[in-house]
Amino acid sequence: MRQSQLFTKTRKSAPKDEVTKNAQLLIRAGYIHKEMAGVYDYLPLGFRVIENIRKIIREEMNAIGGQEVSLSALQDPEIWKATDRWDDSKVDVWFKTKLKNDSELGLGCTHEEPMARMMQEHVSSYRDLPRYAYQFQTKFRNELRAKSGIMRGREFLMKDMYSFSRNQEELDAFYDKAIQAYKNVFERAGIGDKTYLTFASGGMFSKFSHEFQTLCDAGEDRIFVDKEKGIAVNEGMMRDEILKSLGVARETLVESKSIEVGNIFKFGTRYTSELGVTFKDEDGKDMPVVFGSYGIGLGRLMGAIVELLSDAKGIVWPKEIAPYQAHIIAISGGNKDVITEANNLYSLLKDHGIETLYDDRDLRAGEKFADSDLIGIPTRLIVSEKTLSAGGVEVVSRSSGATTLVSESAIIDVLTKE
Amino acid sequence: MRQSQLFTKTRKSAPKDEVTKNAQLLIRAGYIHKEMAGVYDYLPLGFRVIENIRKIIREEMNAIGGQEVSLSALQDPEIWKATDRWDDSKVDVWFKTKLKNDSELGLGCTHEEPMARMMQEHVSSYRDLPRYAYQFQTKFRNELRAKSGIMRGREFLMKDMYSFSRNQEELDAFYDKAIQAYKNVFERAGIGDKTYLTFASGGMFSKFSHEFQTLCDAGEDRIFVDKEKGIAVNEGMMRDEILKSLGVARETLVESKSIEVGNIFKFGTRYTSELGVTFKDEDGKDMPVVFGSYGIGLGRLMGAIVELLSDAKGIVWPKEIAPYQAHIIAISGGNKDVITEANNLYSLLKDHGIETLYDDRDLRAGEKFADSDLIGIPTRLIVSEKTLSAGGVEVVSRSSGATTLVSESAIIDVLTKE
Repeated sequence: MRQSQLFTKTRKSAPKDEVTKNAQLLIRAGYIHKEMAGVYDYLPLGFRVIENIRKIIREEMNAIGGQEVSLSALQDPEIWKATDRWDDSKVDVWFKTKLKNDSELGLGCTHEEPMARMMQEHVSSYRDLPRYAYQFQTKFRNELRAKSGIMRGREFLMKDMYSFSRNQEELDAFYDKAIQAYKNVFERAGIGDKTYLTFASGGMFSKFSHEFQTLCDAGEDRIFVDKEKGIAVNEGMMRDEILKSLGVARETLVESKSIEVGNIFKFGTRYTSELGVTFKDEDGKDMPVVFGSYGIGLGRLMGAIVELLSDAKGIVWPKEIAPYQAHIIAISGGNKDVITEANNLYSLLKDHGIETLYDDRDLRAGEKFADSDLIGIPTRLIVSEKTLSAGGVEVVSRSSGATTLVSESAIIDVLTKE
Repeated sequence: MRQSQLFTKTRKSAPKDEVTKNAQLLIRAGYIHKEMAGVYDYLPLGFRVIENIRKIIREEMNAIGGQEVSLSALQDPEIWKATDRWDDSKVDVWFKTKLKNDSELGLGCTHEEPMARMMQEHVSSYRDLPRYAYQFQTKFRNELRAKSGIMRGREFLMKDMYSFSRNQEELDAFYDKAIQAYKNVFERAGIGDKTYLTFASGGMFSKFSHEFQTLCDAGEDRIFVDKEKGIAVNEGMMRDEILKSLGVARETLVESKSIEVGNIFKFGTRYTSELGVTFKDEDGKDMPVVFGSYGIGLGRLMGAIVELLSDAKGIVWPKEIAPYQAHIIAISGGNKDVITEANNLYSLLKDHGIETLYDDRDLRAGEKFADSDLIGIPTRLIVSEKTLSAGGVEVVSRSSGATTLVSESAIIDVLTKE
């Protein structure tokens, strides 16, 4: 993409009402636009980041047998009444609306109920199980406050997966696979080393549920980390008998603020028994399907990455998340050879399938560098009179700042090896 | 995908309340699930079809300079009041909802207002124009009736593009490019020969708007077609002076039912002048941006394809739209050689990147063929004792029924050439 054509512009300062680093940087760099508190649009660069996150999650969910679907946002109250989750006193984040005939509808804040009801139409026998369905879908949550930028939205894109199993053992086995898939996602997203599998309270059907919590001062949550064991517990778990059962000692736990970047639940037969979602077992007996759910908020993950990996100059995207892999900066000062060389380099990268933003604008070098730091693409390639006479391209790493002069013939190697 | 793992099942009959062919076939074949009237979920096969449509549209929109974004569904009333489109008496399809503090929000039924307001933050000078932004986004429309299956939803995925130009000539030039891009989309979607550029009423700023109407008895619209000229007019245009200006004669027009699969509008400075979306021209004078919009409903396009291209046995997908390119059907009767051969063929196709559904289920041949006809994948590959002893694979075209025996060594050639 030629930056002269990109419709977004950077800005020197963020709107005064944005108090979080993630929203400030993402607005300044042109990734997002605020519609209202807790409601953001994704602009071309931001959309590309979300698509990269989607690609990672999709690959990991497909790898453990997930089948992708897309369910509606508009919700039929009946199924939510069946599980006692329609009343605002039970679930306090509903947005509700009405049809012309005055009948009430909800806007999905999660999708256990419709996913289970839909699945019932395709599951009748034990031979039809286990099955795993997931979607990337917009959730609506009527939050009283929304002050965490894109990390807590009133409308946000979520990956939610649901598992349908024959029995607890089958659920347990898949749940463990999902934990590994989630670890892969956060590793690829560049925050694996800061993200902890965190024990939280379970329910009727399991001792624990799990959150994936990323250590970050900007987080809304508080966890207690055992770094050596690589696990954490949330506040509700800080009871001696629980800590003992997990094999951690209160003294070794370090308190930290954190961001919940994912969560997974074993529901057992909650929801499915209430909704009558059953299968015939090998003896022909009707049994409730054993149910689990697995969520990741894409905007929250993007926000967490910005909170954690930015520096004073701007965002520092991990490779798999960055909107582009390379950022060519032409500093021509009117020199046509520089422009020709930069154009050639841009063509070369395109021909090799390397996603590139090319700053071909007629601006001073300082402005271009400042924008480039703010936008945060991993590798910067500078073409100038100086690099031309030195016989190469200046390659700068956004994360380390390391600078090397690379000949044009070696540039593809350098970019694809990194 | 092994069909034994695909969670959806086909069904012999559609629910009684589904009166349209598109919903009946898509539900029977397992592509969609109905949540309520006018609200459908996309299941794995249906999701793949929507993704293929999205890919075609995305490629065509990118080719004319579109930059992809994603705006919110939740709408701030203020901008809609500014253009006088908030009141239910002015726009009668709003779904409205409320924040906790009782302030009203809307659910986007279209996005001219937020798109224009967002763009204002990035456009200041004539040098920043023209710009084109588009999204694939869920629209909500509170339709009084929703009886056309997935062709008229209360919630549906739409591609909406918006053009921002300096003047009428620039808008006109882009509008013509968009017409060609839309023709490409419908051609690739397999309904190009039935789809007509249709003149409809314009507004303050242009004599006409245009619809893309596909001839179909199941359509809700009525158009008048000049087949020779390759254009049509809608009912409102059947006035002598208009027909004359288009160079068509009333006598040669053939009335037909049709489905509106796309529409495009020149707004001129409507909306942008009301919202104060301006740019500084070359003389430093503030001018309103000249605005256009360009829509395609993805579900409606999918429904139109089903209405037009299905036969008595089921759906007949065009190549670029089909959920899979090839459908392997193993008829083993317990013969292990057949199963081995079918497995090998499946691996071969996967290795060559050919998207394949593999019916590895333990069912009778008749059931498998009936499912395959219903699902409608373009090419069926039958592996049986008979084909094995004949030294090949039976290749059947879903659209023509033509059958040929192809040796395994030639199968990739046959599939990639078609």
